Amino acid sequence: MSTAYRALNDGTLPGVLSELPNVRDFLGGAAETWTVEEVGDGNLNLVFIVKGPQGAVVVKQALPYVRLVGDSWPLPLERSYYEHMALSEQARHAPRLVPKIHHYDRDLALIVMEYLTPHVIMRKGLIRGVEYPLFAGHIAEFMAQTLFNTSALAVPAAVHKQRIAAFAGNTELCKITEDLVFTDPYRVAKLNRWTTPYLDDIAAQFRRDEPLKIKVQERKLQFLTSAEAMIHGDLHTGSVMLTPQDTRVIDPEFAFVGPMGFDVGAVIGNLLIAYYAQAGHEERFGQRNPYRHWILLQTENVWRLFSRRFLELWDKSRSGDAYMPELFTEPEGAVAFAAEKQRFMRKLLTDTISFAGIKMIRRILGLAHTEDLESIKDPALRARCERKALTMARRMVLDADRFTGMNEVAHAARAVLGVN
Amino acid sequence: MSTAYRALNDGTLPGVLSELPNVRDFLGGAAETWTVEEVGDGNLNLVFIVKGPQGAVVVKQALPYVRLVGDSWPLPLERSYYEHMALSEQARHAPRLVPKIHHYDRDLALIVMEYLTPHVIMRKGLIRGVEYPLFAGHIAEFMAQTLFNTSALAVPAAVHKQRIAAFAGNTELCKITEDLVFTDPYRVAKLNRWTTPYLDDIAAQFRRDEPLKIKVQERKLQFLTSAEAMIHGDLHTGSVMLTPQDTRVIDPEFAFVGPMGFDVGAVIGNLLIAYYAQAGHEERFGQRNPYRHWILLQTENVWRLFSRRFLELWDKSRSGDAYMPELFTEPEGAVAFAAEKQRFMRKLLTDTISFAGIKMIRRILGLAHTEDLESIKDPALRARCERKALTMARRMVLDADRFTGMNEVAHAARAVLGVN
Repeated sequence: MSTAYRALNDGTLPGVLSELPNVRDFLGGAAETWTVEEVGDGNLNLVFIVKGPQGAVVVKQALPYVRLVGDSWPLPLERSYYEHMALSEQARHAPRLVPKIHHYDRDLALIVMEYLTPHVIMRKGLIRGVEYPLFAGHIAEFMAQTLFNTSALAVPAAVHKQRIAAFAGNTELCKITEDLVFTDPYRVAKLNRWTTPYLDDIAAQFRRDEPLKIKVQERKLQFLTSAEAMIHGDLHTGSVMLTPQDTRVIDPEFAFVGPMGFDVGAVIGNLLIAYYAQAGHEERFGQRNPYRHWILLQTENVWRLFSRRFLELWDKSRSGDAYMPELFTEPEGAVAFAAEKQRFMRKLLTDTISFAGIKMIRRILGLAHTEDLESIKDPALRARCERKALTMARRMVLDADRFTGMNEVAHAARAVLGVN
Repeated sequence: MSTAYRALNDGTLPGVLSELPNVRDFLGGAAETWTVEEVGDGNLNLVFIVKGPQGAVVVKQALPYVRLVGDSWPLPLERSYYEHMALSEQARHAPRLVPKIHHYDRDLALIVMEYLTPHVIMRKGLIRGVEYPLFAGHIAEFMAQTLFNTSALAVPAAVHKQRIAAFAGNTELCKITEDLVFTDPYRVAKLNRWTTPYLDDIAAQFRRDEPLKIKVQERKLQFLTSAEAMIHGDLHTGSVMLTPQDTRVIDPEFAFVGPMGFDVGAVIGNLLIAYYAQAGHEERFGQRNPYRHWILLQTENVWRLFSRRFLELWDKSRSGDAYMPELFTEPEGAVAFAAEKQRFMRKLLTDTISFAGIKMIRRILGLAHTEDLESIKDPALRARCERKALTMARRMVLDADRFTGMNEVAHAARAVLGVN
């Protein structure tokens, strides 16, 4: 840990910010007049909202341990360095879809960034049943821009390798994913939890489900070795802040160069969790049916808009070292290349579906759960939602390569919902 | 370039070596009595044999340009750093299959290593028709040990990522492969050459062969993004020095963390080049038939022994982060895990066959050819050999996933040989 590091609080933060001319000017007035509120409800960090007479900022500071667990689980402050690097890279490709950065302090592991208002965490909106008509297009744009443009399809090999190396040190954050997503839900692990006793049977079944475990380990190996693009690494609906008009992706501290499908799968998997959680949030049976329908439609829209945008970017690109366009200038070459792009997207769809299923399982049988389900007070009702989500997730992992489109996933999700 | 660097010659090398106590003692006597011979016949470096009254060493020094082309093609001296790092790592896993290192000087880009005698470059032995009964076992052992033990199957994720980062800077050597192996043979490129006019037609065909080019580009993307294990990166029969009893792998300056099948494919592809070159080296038609048979048998032996050893290492391993053994302790789990290992090896076989075919093509239509074929004086005869090799190679790239074993590859190779 840097010797300059100290965890800040509402008393000490204004003094630090007042030393930063651009932040001071942005907030306006004297530091003594600023209000500070600690609002971090995530698993890892301190998050402050600081308001001055002219403006407001958010300050995110890493803690040297996992906030969710306590100081028995140390975690490097350097994750803030990777988060800042990822935010900066994302801003180059999708500037309107990430918060602006006012300041970064490596010693304090602290990022001062745009205060987003009246944005809410998307997960909370999904619980309340709010429709976000622009979300699918925005998140599709974010993923297409950040994944395509940081891949070897878009940049020379040397640039790609430089990026791989730049993020290779973010191992401890990756290890959280490796352990909590790909490993612990499939073994007896102290940190696992689930809605007991209702799900004891299915939790035990999953730990003995050899075909499922094999598929998950195959995906873990892919997560460890497939350096496709800079991924956000934790792109669930709690990492999205939005209004009906505006969408921002936050918190890329898990970023590294990994498989693209992990990000797209995170979005799809978390939409499906919201879908299965609706029974816990409706006042009468079926009240949320239109909203359920809307959510499922978003899974299809996200994939459709993402893959269309990704292919548009690929079609326009001339700078990548893989599939150099000059190799395919003949009419037959253009046809073959177009077919290859479709094959590429089909494989990415398969990856996406599998990673989505894996992310759903870990949110129900592993350490970190989601508010969509956790906020359902009645454990029997919650467990019914969770069991359906698990059933769907298992199918997605085992049969990922049998789905030929996201519409088939939505169809299967609907069928599982109907089964009791 | 380091300011301390200077290309050495037989006049200046003894002075440098005499400053190294262990090398001086190993050679014995006074520096003035040492003989120095420059023997480099490779494409990139200076290679000296230095002999003293008590011992001899080989000194390999990188030049700041590609020796084959001249100083118009600069190349970083740092490749010597990666070569030394790879040699050291290989020595940890296969100590008897690489030359011992006496000294490494980063400033001079110079490695002093074991003088191997009476070893010959394997390619020269294959041209003369020499059988090496232990080669298949040795190269299989080398590949299994180095590939398995530097993969995420064998080491924790953090160690794997550290290795990825450690080699990520070796981009310019990787770029040689990316350009000369995966790109140039499929486009009009100044550096391409082939046995003209005999192969003008097939060279043009390959440049227009859209399905072939697509497959090769798919493999190029894999080469750019698949960080499976530390690979040698240039494992052809010119990188093997051997006697009937002893085998050593040299020259890993192209090493980086890439797809395992690229190394195994290099061995298989170069054996097949030797196979098709035999017609150029026999005194009468069919004289080399037994030797042809021996070569093909080696392709099968290499794969069989490699995959057996790789699986043995995997079975014993407990330290990798992917497929942790504790997840598969039940009898059904062991069965499922064993089947998954077979699936893994089948995919590696496919990769191997495809990369082998790609390596064969580049040796006939690209810049760097092999002595197996180049030493055939009669261009018409050489072109007949090369055309068969190209025909086989194309099939291997296009149908890589249809071969279920290396015996089927050998069978196909034999069938192509019979066709005129």
